[in-house]
Amino acid sequence: MSGFRKTVTQLPVRPGDLDSVGHVNNARALEYLEHGRWDWLRRNNLSRGTNVIPVVVRIEADYRAEIPWGDIRVETDMQDGGDLTFKAIFNQLIYAGSPDQFAVKAVVHVAFIDAAARSVCTLQDYLDDAGAMAANTAR
Amino acid sequence: MSGFRKTVTQLPVRPGDLDSVGHVNNARALEYLEHGRWDWLRRNNLSRGTNVIPVVVRIEADYRAEIPWGDIRVETDMQDGGDLTFKAIFNQLIYAGSPDQFAVKAVVHVAFIDAAARSVCTLQDYLDDAGAMAANTAR
Amino acid sequence: MSGFRKTVTQLPVRPGDLDSVGHVNNARALEYLEHGRWDWLRRNNLSRGTNVIPVVVRIEADYRAEIPWGDIRVETDMQDGGDLTFKAIFNQLIYAGSPDQFAVKAVVHVAFIDAAARSVCTLQDYLDDAGAMAANTAR
Amino acid sequence: MSGFRKTVTQLPVRPGDLDSVGHVNNARALEYLEHGRWDWLRRNNLSRGTNVIPVVVRIEADYRAEIPWGDIRVETDMQDGGDLTFKAIFNQLIYAGSPDQFAVKAVVHVAFIDAAARSVCTLQDYLDDAGAMAANTAR
Repeated sequence: MSGFRKTVTQLPVRPGDLDSVGHVNNARALEYLEHGRWDWLRRNNLSRGTNVIPVVVRIEADYRAEIPWGDIRVETDMQDGGDLTFKAIFNQLIYAGSPDQFAVKAVVHVAFIDAAARSVCTLQDYLDDAGAMAANTAR
Repeated sequence: MSGFRKTVTQLPVRPGDLDSVGHVNNARALEYLEHGRWDWLRRNNLSRGTNVIPVVVRIEADYRAEIPWGDIRVETDMQDGGDLTFKAIFNQLIYAGSPDQFAVKAVVHVAFIDAAARSVCTLQDYLDDAGAMAANTAR
Repeated sequence: MSGFRKTVTQLPVRPGDLDSVGHVNNARALEYLEHGRWDWLRRNNLSRGTNVIPVVVRIEADYRAEIPWGDIRVETDMQDGGDLTFKAIFNQLIYAGSPDQFAVKAVVHVAFIDAAARSVCTLQDYLDDAGAMAANTAR
Repeated sequence: MSGFRKTVTQLPVRPGDLDSVGHVNNARALEYLEHGRWDWLRRNNLSRGTNVIPVVVRIEADYRAEIPWGDIRVETDMQDGGDLTFKAIFNQLIYAGSPDQFAVKAVVHVAFIDAAARSVCTLQDYLDDAGAMAANTAR
């Protein structure tokens, strides 16, 4: 149990997200995921960091259904790591239209960098910097 | 009086909209305006056209305040032309944070093109194609 | 041996690609990969298809170095499948600055869809539609 | 005569720039203009500023021709102000395909902000901050 809440974020597809066949471009879908992660941080009372900043190091995304213009829903959950290691891994899903069938499923690996020293940090370093009160009280 | 309703569209700024100083990029702000116009069409019961398509031919945009990550509001209104000419002109405003001070003010000129013949059409041609029931009944 | 040429595509980072810490956003990097694949098609004398269209179904991307404003290089190569199956898999690398160290490494899975019937096709169906003369003559 | 060189910047349209009718989206065209202005700064030996930063306050853009996937050319020139006022005005043109007919014509107004004090500065303040050696020597 990571001690953090899974979040659900609603947002609209914008016309500029659509490609030349009228569906959301695969790159634009990653912007929805990023918005979902920022919203996850905000709702878990974490700032985006000032000294220790999160950096995406790997994304695996499966595209299962076309996304048209309309509203979508992004679910964001942090995998339980068991300990506070050098990476956080997020499971994210994008739903468009059907509530039963996701359109995109992604696993996003985030590392933590000391902004000044450009060196690798741990999740705990990040939480200390981001003022992670939620992490300590939410169990 | 154009016979069409002014619309207000809410949408969130996405992290990918922010530039290297942390505010919405001027190009991305135009995506909000485009989203507002699509929403205006939808709420005025107009389709986006199949035979006659609207094309942006001129944009004048004044940027008055920085837009941070958060929710924004786009107001979209069609100028009353008095007659059904070769252009529709939209007045649009983006509000972020303060409800009293807009962040962006834009005037957007839209022309109408016959998709097959690549020739210029009138607003009336477009309305005929887009099934503009609202236009005829809303006065 | 797939019979297709590996391609190298140069393009500039645009200011709008940079995020709030001044480096290329992870979503924007996928646009470079997409541009690389379109260029791969063009240089291998393949059209983008009209009846049978390629659709990205999975992306695995590793981000190893920050990409600043400047020129980048995208390498695109199709994996040899041995037979003409239901998927094409592309290995792609983005280089920025150092010619020895890639910034992004990606594996992109592409499926083929019959645009009218919305049914799955094979790579061979796509090549037949895209007029793949290069595939037959380049061995 | 502003003392600065007019610049021409080449760059490719990316697939993600195209909208659902297969032409460059009007918002994306502004990214080409922004790239042209950064290139103008670089070639005129101006940095993008650290204490005094340029901010776009108004854009007037006329869209005259559709831009397909391919290479484009952005011309960027600073209007001669006669004195070093609170605004710089850039005339920009985008050419795609035909060298004789521009696709987009824009006038872009840029103001200068003291990053710390959030107060308005003059072009001269900006040039002092950006180390504008070129301005003094290029006549």
